[in-house]
Amino acid sequence: MRQSNLFYKTQKASNVQEMSKNAQLLTRAGFIHKLMGGAYSYMPLGFRTLNKIENLIRQYMQTVNGQEVMMPVLQPSDVWKQTGRWDKIDVLYKIHGHADKEYALSPTNEEVVTPFVTNFISSYKDLPKAVFQIQNKFRDEPRSKSGLFRCKEFRMNDLYSFHESQADLDMYYEKVAQMYMEFYTDCGIGDKTYFTYASGGAFAKYSHEFQTLTDAGEDTIYIIPGTKIAINREIIGDKCALRDIIPNYTDGIEKTFEQKRAVEVGNIFKLGTRFTAPFDANFIDNKGQSKPIIMGCYGIGPSRVMGTVAECLSDDRGLVWPAKIAPFEWHLISMAVKDDEIAVVDNIYQQLLNAQFDVLYDDRKDVRGGIKFAESDLIGIPNRIIIGKTFFNTGNVEVKDRKNGNVTQMSVNDLIRLTQQTKLR
Amino acid sequence: MRQSNLFYKTQKASNVQEMSKNAQLLTRAGFIHKLMGGAYSYMPLGFRTLNKIENLIRQYMQTVNGQEVMMPVLQPSDVWKQTGRWDKIDVLYKIHGHADKEYALSPTNEEVVTPFVTNFISSYKDLPKAVFQIQNKFRDEPRSKSGLFRCKEFRMNDLYSFHESQADLDMYYEKVAQMYMEFYTDCGIGDKTYFTYASGGAFAKYSHEFQTLTDAGEDTIYIIPGTKIAINREIIGDKCALRDIIPNYTDGIEKTFEQKRAVEVGNIFKLGTRFTAPFDANFIDNKGQSKPIIMGCYGIGPSRVMGTVAECLSDDRGLVWPAKIAPFEWHLISMAVKDDEIAVVDNIYQQLLNAQFDVLYDDRKDVRGGIKFAESDLIGIPNRIIIGKTFFNTGNVEVKDRKNGNVTQMSVNDLIRLTQQTKLR
Repeated sequence: MRQSNLFYKTQKASNVQEMSKNAQLLTRAGFIHKLMGGAYSYMPLGFRTLNKIENLIRQYMQTVNGQEVMMPVLQPSDVWKQTGRWDKIDVLYKIHGHADKEYALSPTNEEVVTPFVTNFISSYKDLPKAVFQIQNKFRDEPRSKSGLFRCKEFRMNDLYSFHESQADLDMYYEKVAQMYMEFYTDCGIGDKTYFTYASGGAFAKYSHEFQTLTDAGEDTIYIIPGTKIAINREIIGDKCALRDIIPNYTDGIEKTFEQKRAVEVGNIFKLGTRFTAPFDANFIDNKGQSKPIIMGCYGIGPSRVMGTVAECLSDDRGLVWPAKIAPFEWHLISMAVKDDEIAVVDNIYQQLLNAQFDVLYDDRKDVRGGIKFAESDLIGIPNRIIIGKTFFNTGNVEVKDRKNGNVTQMSVNDLIRLTQQTKLR
Repeated sequence: MRQSNLFYKTQKASNVQEMSKNAQLLTRAGFIHKLMGGAYSYMPLGFRTLNKIENLIRQYMQTVNGQEVMMPVLQPSDVWKQTGRWDKIDVLYKIHGHADKEYALSPTNEEVVTPFVTNFISSYKDLPKAVFQIQNKFRDEPRSKSGLFRCKEFRMNDLYSFHESQADLDMYYEKVAQMYMEFYTDCGIGDKTYFTYASGGAFAKYSHEFQTLTDAGEDTIYIIPGTKIAINREIIGDKCALRDIIPNYTDGIEKTFEQKRAVEVGNIFKLGTRFTAPFDANFIDNKGQSKPIIMGCYGIGPSRVMGTVAECLSDDRGLVWPAKIAPFEWHLISMAVKDDEIAVVDNIYQQLLNAQFDVLYDDRKDVRGGIKFAESDLIGIPNRIIIGKTFFNTGNVEVKDRKNGNVTQMSVNDLIRLTQQTKLR
């Protein structure tokens, strides 16, 4: 895409009224625009980034046999009453419509997915099944001051699995947990993300959260030394759980654990029959017996992941995106001013497009190099191709790594050849 | 994808309680599942179809320089009050949240897109700009009995354009109108779709609708003989408009026009300053003068298009999808029963995948051929590859066209070669 056409504008820090670093940076760089507290519009750069995150999730969903579906977010109150959550979830938006009909605006989807999927399950032969969706979810959050961390409307990838036994759920759950960690690693936050034991609510011993370390996070976790495992503050007082979780537990050892602020970027639950029971969702097992279907649910917030990457991987100069989720993988920056020079760079841009480069081309003629570089730093595209003096003297472009600042010189042909080799590997 | 894993089940007509043909067929074929009147869940087949439609729209959006963004559907009441539509749109869902905050659930997006986009426009150099999104929209419809034609929650592609002059808008509007018609042609409903003059509301002479002929439609249009142009009933009494629209108009000639039922699959509006004025959205022109930004909006309902194709292109045996928007392009149906035969068909499936075929593989062992064919007819994938007796005798597969029933025999290698040649063309 040509930057001269791109719908964006960068802003000075002093012009952006945001308390959180992630919203501050993403707003300054032209990724998001605030509609109200807890609700943002995504500009093209932000939409592309979100889309990259969501498409990466789609790839991972395939590895756990997840099939993509889409359920309404406008949901009749009766299914919420059936599970007893109509009056229990205080962030639930309720709508009073025509003909005295009441609706919930989905904050999570168990009330709809359970009768939907189990409607098509009658026998053990129909199991297991896993469906997922990626859509907007809604929570009436009283506090929305942490940018994309806590929104009234946010993106959610929710996966639901249906099993004939607890053992089958356990196996699947383990697989999803591993897959989640690989996903966070692809997003560049794997080393900061901890598999965290949390409350299981009324229906399971624990649930598990994926918590990424950042002082901007609202949660507190206790890290088990030498591991990537942690315990959420909400269950740190539960001795019974601690004995279960911590190897060779001795009384009070949790007080020696490092205590850290973190943001929850994922959450997985063994629901068991919590939702299948109220909907009488049963199946006939291989002995002809009717049994309740066993269920699990798994959630990643793509917009919160985007905020977390912005918060955790940025530096003084701006955002730093990992290649897999960057709005573009390459930023082609042209210093050309004369028409014949511009024609040469236009031609290089076309060569890159032909070679399937995912590239933003800063083709603006009336903007100085210093401003282009500062903006490029702020936007945070991982690889920069600079076409300036060096190129016009030597024929080599400068390739700069946004993260470490390393610069390499090479011909455009070599760049294309090397990149294609790297992709194939 | 292997059909044995696919989350779907076909149903008998007698088991489906739907008044409309489109919902009846899509439900029977395992594309959608009703949550409540006017709200459907999309199963994998339905989600894939919808996704194909939406990705096709994305391709067309690029041809009119549309940049994809995403705006919240939960919108503060104040912007709706600012344009005077808070109390005027009677299908508007209103939400009363925490701290006495009021929200609208977006039925359309002018109230948000106008201040959002114009916030980044200060000069004529920033114009024109066009942004679009594809997302769920909401209308509190009292009647929701026509399946995907009229839903409380539905998919919407809304494009908004911003211009420095009426002339520039007029040019762009013309381009979008042409592009829309190409899109409907790709969806297989081009020949049934009419460019229809409709009321322009308070701010324009007319708007234009794209109306597809079907008795299931809720609109009535009058076709100008020998053209693909029509007039909506709502303005057929407006002599002034008729004189303007109809070449060589003579009094009363409209009474001779063919009157047809149709469904509106798209709608385009010249908004002018209707929404930029209330938000004081101005720009500085090339003479240094401040002027209001001129705006247009353009909408296609992807889910309604899906319903329209189901309604209009189906036959006695089920759905008939055009290749570009089919859930899969190919349906590989195996009659193999013995293990060595199954291994051969599995291998063909793998060959097709390697050759980038978008294919659903009916690999079920315990289902009779007749049932597989009937189900395949119902689902409506355009091209069928049958591996049965003929194949095991001659080595040639049968390739059957869902629409006209034509069967061709050829080797798998020829099929792959021919298909790849066709795609390149």
